[in-house]
Amino acid sequence: MNVNNKPYQTIWLHPDDATIVQTIDQRLLPFEFRIVDLKCFEDARSAIADMIVRGAPLIGVTAAYGMYLAMLDHPFLADLTSYLRDCARRLTSTRPTAINLSHAVDRSLHAILGEKDINAKLDVALKTAQEIAKEETEACRKIGQFGLAVIEDLAKKKRNSVVNILTHCNAGWLACIDYGTATAPIYLAHDRGIKVHVWVDETRPRNQGARLTAWELAQHGVPYTVITDNAGGLLMQQGKVDVVIVGSDRTTLSGDVVNKIGTYQKALAAKDNHIPLYVALPSSSIDPSLQDGFESIPIEERNREEVELVEGLTETGLERVRICSEGTPVLNPGFDITPARFVTGLITERGICEANEQSILRLFPSFRKSF
Amino acid sequence: MNVNNKPYQTIWLHPDDATIVQTIDQRLLPFEFRIVDLKCFEDARSAIADMIVRGAPLIGVTAAYGMYLAMLDHPFLADLTSYLRDCARRLTSTRPTAINLSHAVDRSLHAILGEKDINAKLDVALKTAQEIAKEETEACRKIGQFGLAVIEDLAKKKRNSVVNILTHCNAGWLACIDYGTATAPIYLAHDRGIKVHVWVDETRPRNQGARLTAWELAQHGVPYTVITDNAGGLLMQQGKVDVVIVGSDRTTLSGDVVNKIGTYQKALAAKDNHIPLYVALPSSSIDPSLQDGFESIPIEERNREEVELVEGLTETGLERVRICSEGTPVLNPGFDITPARFVTGLITERGICEANEQSILRLFPSFRKSF
Repeated sequence: MNVNNKPYQTIWLHPDDATIVQTIDQRLLPFEFRIVDLKCFEDARSAIADMIVRGAPLIGVTAAYGMYLAMLDHPFLADLTSYLRDCARRLTSTRPTAINLSHAVDRSLHAILGEKDINAKLDVALKTAQEIAKEETEACRKIGQFGLAVIEDLAKKKRNSVVNILTHCNAGWLACIDYGTATAPIYLAHDRGIKVHVWVDETRPRNQGARLTAWELAQHGVPYTVITDNAGGLLMQQGKVDVVIVGSDRTTLSGDVVNKIGTYQKALAAKDNHIPLYVALPSSSIDPSLQDGFESIPIEERNREEVELVEGLTETGLERVRICSEGTPVLNPGFDITPARFVTGLITERGICEANEQSILRLFPSFRKSF
Repeated sequence: MNVNNKPYQTIWLHPDDATIVQTIDQRLLPFEFRIVDLKCFEDARSAIADMIVRGAPLIGVTAAYGMYLAMLDHPFLADLTSYLRDCARRLTSTRPTAINLSHAVDRSLHAILGEKDINAKLDVALKTAQEIAKEETEACRKIGQFGLAVIEDLAKKKRNSVVNILTHCNAGWLACIDYGTATAPIYLAHDRGIKVHVWVDETRPRNQGARLTAWELAQHGVPYTVITDNAGGLLMQQGKVDVVIVGSDRTTLSGDVVNKIGTYQKALAAKDNHIPLYVALPSSSIDPSLQDGFESIPIEERNREEVELVEGLTETGLERVRICSEGTPVLNPGFDITPARFVTGLITERGICEANEQSILRLFPSFRKSF
């Protein structure tokens, strides 16, 4: 998507030097747009660990590039295989919950170990990273196309007045490689001249909405307004929201949606006000091993500092301020579960389906094989 | 309630000097407990305007003391009546939405103007402020007693294991003179030895939960945990909330509850998880002029800076950090409306009633006269 009117993806090979991978330091957004060079395995590993990059698809691709950089670091190592296995293990352990990460690392490792000579190993390492990036991009592009129909329908019903979309957290292109998941239909609708406006939940505790979603919408020229996480319910009561579109970290085969904490409260408000709620997700986020309800999904408990300390810009740079007394008891669950009965539809790369097993399997019959 | 193990109210006459009113600078909590002297009318006016004090009941009492200080400032003024009317007008305009403010100011002005000689005017000014404070305190004390039954019942049902109460914003003693509204039953239950634990919504944008409610619960020794406003729904899904108790800024005769933005989302989650939700409020917060639904209640739109800038402690003191780009479009509605159908009961100073006209009028028949 556009940054300062120039199209970007979130990660790419340096145009003049194929030994350098470039990405955006998302920790500094929206206050500074800084491109960082990943020149070695350790750069890639720490980019994930230190959250220079975040978002499941982007983490996966960064890790695949990390395997490529690992090959570049020590192509002639005697014990190359065990070195690569160690790199893979170290990448996977940076963010243990993102399923894309281990998938990407496994795929890259398997491909590299499948080649015999060094040049072929190097080639396939790079090719794999680029392939995964392309697949992720393509999935998001298709999610955009299928989701566009939802927004077009609403625009028709509203006789071409502005369609108001509420989203939570950042399921945007910054979390992916391009387009995003929840944002893909929004960008496409905007580009087609449909009048859209996005209510952006700030998304405490990390404020990915206020910092990242707001920034990327602004860069692409999509009208938006930042609100607190408390405000969405009122806006729905007031008729100021036409549709809710969110992403998902993991969705069960029964259609229960795990997503950033607070999504469930938005789903409740949408239901109470007869507003459709769509979940935009690539099929890679559907977990076919979870068939029956949400009690089996563990909810990650995150660092208490995310709640206690709020980061933002001061005159002297980025700083964190303490919003409650030191030692205050804090609980910081990272995700919640929106039961399938609140989900109007899942927008996937193969089309829109209902949030239930039968409907999901119709689009993705391969999930049936898992059992 | 207790501060550093010593009982306090939120406003009082200086024990050694009856010309000075003392209060707590709530802008500095929880980081500093500073008592400030209000020595003249202007001190009282700016204490309200600059939010040294906040919370509708406390604002009302501060304003009544302000009228007393106005009398002390210029007791022998030739044109005393028009001076007092001007002071009353200036007080009322500081926070135009708090109904207690204008009620308290009108009552004080009327009492002062009703007396003839200066000493009687001074006496009645002080007496009125103290009376209003006493009435507010008494209403909260009774709310605590009636609300205690709710918590006792839950404790019995749970066979004396911990009763988990979720609250939003600060409807605590800091907003009132003592006890608080939503917190009054909690303090009383705790003092009676019932095991309680409070989930404290941080309550963006002003974080009154994380800053004020957490502080006052800690000072009184009530166990609590601060959570983001996004987390309550999940905790209810997980069975970790037994009851929701909130305050109210204004409640209609039909039982619709206007309260701090985000209350509605908690009410939705409570309903979906079969958790009772009580609204604790003095009858002065019931607006008998609003009988039929919530469309007539205007929702105050507050300063955008409350969303953009988050205040907290740094090594150098209180500071505000910017969490989104300068110029970001922001909307900051201050309140939302919880429809009566989500309210299990209203806890008032005359008992608990259902959130509907018939039930409210049974406790408060005088509201009928208004029509």
